[in-house]
Amino acid sequence: MSRPFRNPNPVLLSDSELKEMAEFAGRLADASRKAILPHFRENPHMENKRTEEDYDPVTVADRDAEEAIRTLIEKYYPEHSIFGEEFGYKESESALTWTLDPIDGTRPFLLGLPTWGTLIALHNGSKPILGILDQPFTGERFIGAPQIGLAELQTSDGTGPLKTRMCKSVAEASLSSTHPSMFSNDPLRAAYDELARKARIHVFGGDCYAYGTLSLGLHDIVVEASLAPYDIQAMIPIIEAAGGIVTDWRGGPADLGGQVLAAGTREVHAEAVEILKSAAISAPA
Amino acid sequence: MSRPFRNPNPVLLSDSELKEMAEFAGRLADASRKAILPHFRENPHMENKRTEEDYDPVTVADRDAEEAIRTLIEKYYPEHSIFGEEFGYKESESALTWTLDPIDGTRPFLLGLPTWGTLIALHNGSKPILGILDQPFTGERFIGAPQIGLAELQTSDGTGPLKTRMCKSVAEASLSSTHPSMFSNDPLRAAYDELARKARIHVFGGDCYAYGTLSLGLHDIVVEASLAPYDIQAMIPIIEAAGGIVTDWRGGPADLGGQVLAAGTREVHAEAVEILKSAAISAPA
Repeated sequence: MSRPFRNPNPVLLSDSELKEMAEFAGRLADASRKAILPHFRENPHMENKRTEEDYDPVTVADRDAEEAIRTLIEKYYPEHSIFGEEFGYKESESALTWTLDPIDGTRPFLLGLPTWGTLIALHNGSKPILGILDQPFTGERFIGAPQIGLAELQTSDGTGPLKTRMCKSVAEASLSSTHPSMFSNDPLRAAYDELARKARIHVFGGDCYAYGTLSLGLHDIVVEASLAPYDIQAMIPIIEAAGGIVTDWRGGPADLGGQVLAAGTREVHAEAVEILKSAAISAPA
Repeated sequence: MSRPFRNPNPVLLSDSELKEMAEFAGRLADASRKAILPHFRENPHMENKRTEEDYDPVTVADRDAEEAIRTLIEKYYPEHSIFGEEFGYKESESALTWTLDPIDGTRPFLLGLPTWGTLIALHNGSKPILGILDQPFTGERFIGAPQIGLAELQTSDGTGPLKTRMCKSVAEASLSSTHPSMFSNDPLRAAYDELARKARIHVFGGDCYAYGTLSLGLHDIVVEASLAPYDIQAMIPIIEAAGGIVTDWRGGPADLGGQVLAAGTREVHAEAVEILKSAAISAPA
């Protein structure tokens, strides 16, 4: 799914236009929260709320949320394109594309863990320029737009800055990945294992939430594979605005998904690319 | 560390005595929260709060919390024994032992993820009879005591019941474990892999929080190895009070730690024991 993201004529927004988009993205996240929260930890069998045998709260929440977001975009910015996990690509006249994943982390969502999130990115045809990672249950919203210096964690207690921490080497770094099955074939597994062996600590799980704590300066490296564009685009402006870097395993653009490496500093990123590049495959088309 | 937990004369509390202990355990968790929360997501380097090179927020929080808990126990119930992760075993005249792990899940704590917890159990010399799993950041407190029918999730929004969900087979079940390194040798790894292959979904991470969502009826199986007594004792009364079961991989008592299996129903538990028992080792002494 590269077409909307490799436009020869990307849109250059002014700072005030981008600020307007950042405010609008917050409204999209509000609408998504409202659609998802009733379904988080919903237990259809225990609560006798549903009779359908195959009722699946995560699917319902995912669709309701993406519909709510699409409705707002179509109302206020009908010229913008949309690329969402649930309902696919809707091309419109603008090269601006909203890239959406209402529930990134289906498995933690299903298990009642708070490490899933809602991902909303605005892509200008060349790169994502605005990103939101929203965690409705904890009430945390990470938002980033490097062009306007926006890098914030918004919570019910107030707003704080996002800033990655100093970390000079993989040996000092924490490392996370969603699940070892991402590295199931041999070269990927060997590359991951080498990185994990060198890192100070490594964990699985965390899912998209780990990108958030990286942008907060609490974590150093996230390495993943087999991602879709909507799994990663929101993270790129957030982490870049916080001082970090997100690329594929070769050091190239990560907005198409595939193999992704996020790091808090250029030093750690460069060292990780050296380890991972032998297992790098071409970006998805 | 089996001595305090294999007493030939266990203490039998009356229901009103156990209720008093449950209230007191809540006060212990309150004190622990207060000690830990200032250190969660504390970033000594970025905030220039600390000059010591080796300052470690998790160690400080762990010790401060266990000291706060011990101080209260020693003040109000000096006859009770204490077994804590940080300061070890303090034998007193009673066979009642408070088993403490202020921060279970050091790695998620360090990374800023909300899946760590404070574990407080009261063991009567034969088995744990009261347990608390407290998550200070999300403000969730799981508490269970089967003898008095106590099985609650307490939050700032109110109190709800804990109840495991119906799940008839491993094929329908969700499975979680903290990290694959728990199953690093061959028979353990093979047993885990077989269980994971049969389960509907399996995740790593989640840590102690996954036992909480199991007691909420959102998750079905947690399987772990190499646990200490303070890693598991609090979970036993919580999950039992919610209708589930916690044993070692053979189906025997889990309060000494080691290899642990928690399940929401007896059917799923029995099927999992069949898979795991070939890799079961003797309980730690």
